[in-house]
Amino acid sequence: MPTLRLALCQVDPTVGDLAGNADLVRAWSRQAADAGAQLALFPELMLTGYPVEDLVFRRSFVAASKAALERLAADLATDGLGELPVLVGYLDADGPPQVSADAEPGRGARNAAALLHRGGVAARYFKHHLPNYGVFDEDRYFVPGDTLNVVRIGGVDVALTICEDLWQAGGPFAVARQAGVGLVLNINGSPYELNKDDIRLPLVRRRAAEAGAAIAYVNMVGGQDELVYDGDSMIVSADGTLLARAPQFVEHLLLHDVALPAAREPAGGDGELSDGMRVVRAELDAIPPAPTGEPAVGGVIAPVADEAEVWQALVLGLRDYVNKNRFPSVVLGLSGGIDSAVSAVIAVDALGPDRVVGVSMPSQHSSEHSRADAEDLAKRTGLDYRVQPMQPMVDAFLASMSLSGVTVENLQARVRGVILMALSNQEGHLVLTTGNKSELAVGYSTLYGDSVGGYNPVKDVWKTLIWRLAKWRNADAERRGETPPIPESSIGKPPSAELSPGQLDSDTLPDYDVLDPILIGYVDGDLGRDGLIESGHDPAIVDRVLRMVDTAEYKRRQSAPGTKISHKAFGRDRRLPITNRWREHG
Amino acid sequence: MPTLRLALCQVDPTVGDLAGNADLVRAWSRQAADAGAQLALFPELMLTGYPVEDLVFRRSFVAASKAALERLAADLATDGLGELPVLVGYLDADGPPQVSADAEPGRGARNAAALLHRGGVAARYFKHHLPNYGVFDEDRYFVPGDTLNVVRIGGVDVALTICEDLWQAGGPFAVARQAGVGLVLNINGSPYELNKDDIRLPLVRRRAAEAGAAIAYVNMVGGQDELVYDGDSMIVSADGTLLARAPQFVEHLLLHDVALPAAREPAGGDGELSDGMRVVRAELDAIPPAPTGEPAVGGVIAPVADEAEVWQALVLGLRDYVNKNRFPSVVLGLSGGIDSAVSAVIAVDALGPDRVVGVSMPSQHSSEHSRADAEDLAKRTGLDYRVQPMQPMVDAFLASMSLSGVTVENLQARVRGVILMALSNQEGHLVLTTGNKSELAVGYSTLYGDSVGGYNPVKDVWKTLIWRLAKWRNADAERRGETPPIPESSIGKPPSAELSPGQLDSDTLPDYDVLDPILIGYVDGDLGRDGLIESGHDPAIVDRVLRMVDTAEYKRRQSAPGTKISHKAFGRDRRLPITNRWREHG
Repeated sequence: MPTLRLALCQVDPTVGDLAGNADLVRAWSRQAADAGAQLALFPELMLTGYPVEDLVFRRSFVAASKAALERLAADLATDGLGELPVLVGYLDADGPPQVSADAEPGRGARNAAALLHRGGVAARYFKHHLPNYGVFDEDRYFVPGDTLNVVRIGGVDVALTICEDLWQAGGPFAVARQAGVGLVLNINGSPYELNKDDIRLPLVRRRAAEAGAAIAYVNMVGGQDELVYDGDSMIVSADGTLLARAPQFVEHLLLHDVALPAAREPAGGDGELSDGMRVVRAELDAIPPAPTGEPAVGGVIAPVADEAEVWQALVLGLRDYVNKNRFPSVVLGLSGGIDSAVSAVIAVDALGPDRVVGVSMPSQHSSEHSRADAEDLAKRTGLDYRVQPMQPMVDAFLASMSLSGVTVENLQARVRGVILMALSNQEGHLVLTTGNKSELAVGYSTLYGDSVGGYNPVKDVWKTLIWRLAKWRNADAERRGETPPIPESSIGKPPSAELSPGQLDSDTLPDYDVLDPILIGYVDGDLGRDGLIESGHDPAIVDRVLRMVDTAEYKRRQSAPGTKISHKAFGRDRRLPITNRWREHG
Repeated sequence: MPTLRLALCQVDPTVGDLAGNADLVRAWSRQAADAGAQLALFPELMLTGYPVEDLVFRRSFVAASKAALERLAADLATDGLGELPVLVGYLDADGPPQVSADAEPGRGARNAAALLHRGGVAARYFKHHLPNYGVFDEDRYFVPGDTLNVVRIGGVDVALTICEDLWQAGGPFAVARQAGVGLVLNINGSPYELNKDDIRLPLVRRRAAEAGAAIAYVNMVGGQDELVYDGDSMIVSADGTLLARAPQFVEHLLLHDVALPAAREPAGGDGELSDGMRVVRAELDAIPPAPTGEPAVGGVIAPVADEAEVWQALVLGLRDYVNKNRFPSVVLGLSGGIDSAVSAVIAVDALGPDRVVGVSMPSQHSSEHSRADAEDLAKRTGLDYRVQPMQPMVDAFLASMSLSGVTVENLQARVRGVILMALSNQEGHLVLTTGNKSELAVGYSTLYGDSVGGYNPVKDVWKTLIWRLAKWRNADAERRGETPPIPESSIGKPPSAELSPGQLDSDTLPDYDVLDPILIGYVDGDLGRDGLIESGHDPAIVDRVLRMVDTAEYKRRQSAPGTKISHKAFGRDRRLPITNRWREHG
């Protein structure tokens, strides 16, 4: 039984950064080769980043992706890595890029994988199952492939597949069994969702059984606008044994020796295959020799608590958003409350205290403990703390206009927004807004006020989860012998916007432990009014909450992007990604 | 040859307003019956409105749509209209609505049409071709139908089809020929795009030839969030003759007598049909008798100038957005410039001068002519004019913070935004923002400043088209003997933001007659840098413009909705529509 040393390269590409992503492949291929790897795998659409969205419609971008692939193959050979087979995702299209403006753009585009070897492309595979639900729009962008590419590598028949191919029964994995392969490579751009890692392993096992082959599953890692990829790359044997599994949320080289069956000719040939697919075979003439010495063991990472997983997702999502957009630093308002405290600590964990500015903007309604809690947080974290009183600006509006009631509350929130944006303009910080998912759902915020900002670290976090995260983060600090970063009184006190005397969230909203379960059922669960009432919620409260959610749609559309941790975050758009590094102009 | 009196009901439904939309069907069916109609057609998804987007995923909404259809059929019979066959679009789903939260929502949903007759459903058709490009996401929401429903009505075989079925060759229209029908009904939710009406007629003629049958094409009219439907309903004979055509942008009953071939059994039966479809036949036992007296002649509307067409689209889009969202009135800043002047006149045309508030907010940099032009516009249109000086508020910020350069410019724009939002809060107006498409493209605006607002009437209008619209609107007023509403000096003066002394747009941007063609090529045409240079643009200017567009993505994501008039407006999202009248809660 041949053994192959596999290198699963769990890396963090950036959409549009063709040169930077190619450099990543070269650097990690070098590491893999130095460790004796005989086959290296990179994620789905590695060269372009994922999701490329409407960049697919730019002929010049498709052409640039194809050219970058050819150059990468040549560069790997120049680097002395030509013998190492390297599987890399890229964007392809049938035929030469169209030049007529009349031609329908994007026609024939492919979500593709190329096996690079000896300076060229030894095999290409086009994704067969295209997802078109949730965050995915691949029916809009891509044409499905109908061949399964099987490459004989070191005496083992290896099939190439991409992401969604794994999530649906039938298709490539059924064909892989018919083709008698020993190993299926599956390269992914699979975004994080809470508990998704609990689904992946059983799924990979099911497909291993379907294919009758081992599976090497590699996923990207890192934040890309609202999405965050968690990695969680793994190798599963044909009998379902988990051989190796990488940690989530960090770049990682998962290196593991896998014993695989020697290639044999399939009994019935390659005719009559599942799902209208056909098999195309190739063979690599030479790969790096089997390494001597100790076998490589990738290890199996232990699972972490849900709070730890979410925290890492939020930290990585923010860090990559800030760095991929090349912001030097962030600024946020510190109210002394829990949302801004948790957001500030996420920012400090992501960027370090020197790149985080926290501003207390007290008004006549700010309590003494609010200012004290904000200052306490600043001391605990070491962030750059400022105080900018705002009453003079508010008074200037009140002196010139006849305003009353909620208008005056909103005015204060908007003056704070103007202050933060002025600091952003003047000093270059990205403004963070900190409204949690519960507030976004019911519209409990001021448009162009506290909702001002370019990124929201807690956009997809329900309020009750904010508290859990805060407690977990403090306990985790204590466990490591560090100062808990979040003041206890920020966690314990009743939430308040402090925009009018003695105001509490509970004046306007049900308690969050009543509100959140209704919101989770309505938003995440698509339950209707009747379904919510059947679940035991008070009909009057259900009506009140649903009315708020249905009328807050406009505010949600104006909200900042933020890391998505659920299957139903508010407001991801299909357009150009923001952190798009592709610039064809000078 | 039998003759049928057709009633094409070009009406304006609202997404989610099941009861209101059903009332529209009842009222227009009554009008049609009173005029002797023997068959009435309403648009695609008439009962739910279009697009329903993520409402499809709510089981309670699907159930409500199906129940509303049954009720409508019964109500029509109660109204004494049971004999009149009424074709109406609605949302259906296979089987009873799922109640388990585990079931995948939306599975099996159908974009459906029902032929109502004698208090029940005489035939149902499920849309076969599902569009999944541009503003359409129907692969995400619907399962395609695979039957062509043919109903014998008054001795004529009539096939039922929906919208996209008409835009693709093969499928229902090819099957209609095989089934030997005399008339194809095609019901639409086809959004307006500049010059789309020039494409529709040739397309309907092509399908009439393909089916060998007459076509009755009915489209909805009205604004739904960013989309505006233009109507343009028509009847074309089997030989391609345009028999009748309705005006755009108004509700209209197009009533016309059409001579049609008597039904005959198809030569080869209903086997072996195109595109895997099969035919299901039905027959109505009685319809209203052939009317006596003069034949009904629908007439053929004359085409209008492009500027008139766009103007009507923008006026209707704004009117429906304001009214469907139940805003009493709108407020906008009047700078004396062309964008706010054109926006204000669109608003006055849409809502009347009593529902439009215009605010001049002069600063120390505002020129005398700006204030005079704003006041002149107010006088010409009769809108509610206010002056709110903003220097004291700006000074309060400058006194408390160390701000300079562009930060001070942006501060002024933001203070204006706070003033408009305070007026909105205090008095209930919807704030209109007025940045044109050229500014949006290059990011020439202040985030949370002049971009503040709930709707942008000129969001999809290039600056050079703004000027053309202004000249057309003034000339049209003169032609009608009215006062031209837009001051000549607003049209003629060089554009300026007036945020610093002597500032002009041309300090920062190329002239608009250079800028717009580059933007149109890059944004609407998906041309790359090389393509733009091949078209004759200066490479240095191309680079400068592309750099601006690529870095302005974040501002565009934060922009307000506005009527879409091109195939590539910025920033339409796939989420719940904002003007969603469906409320299941009390």
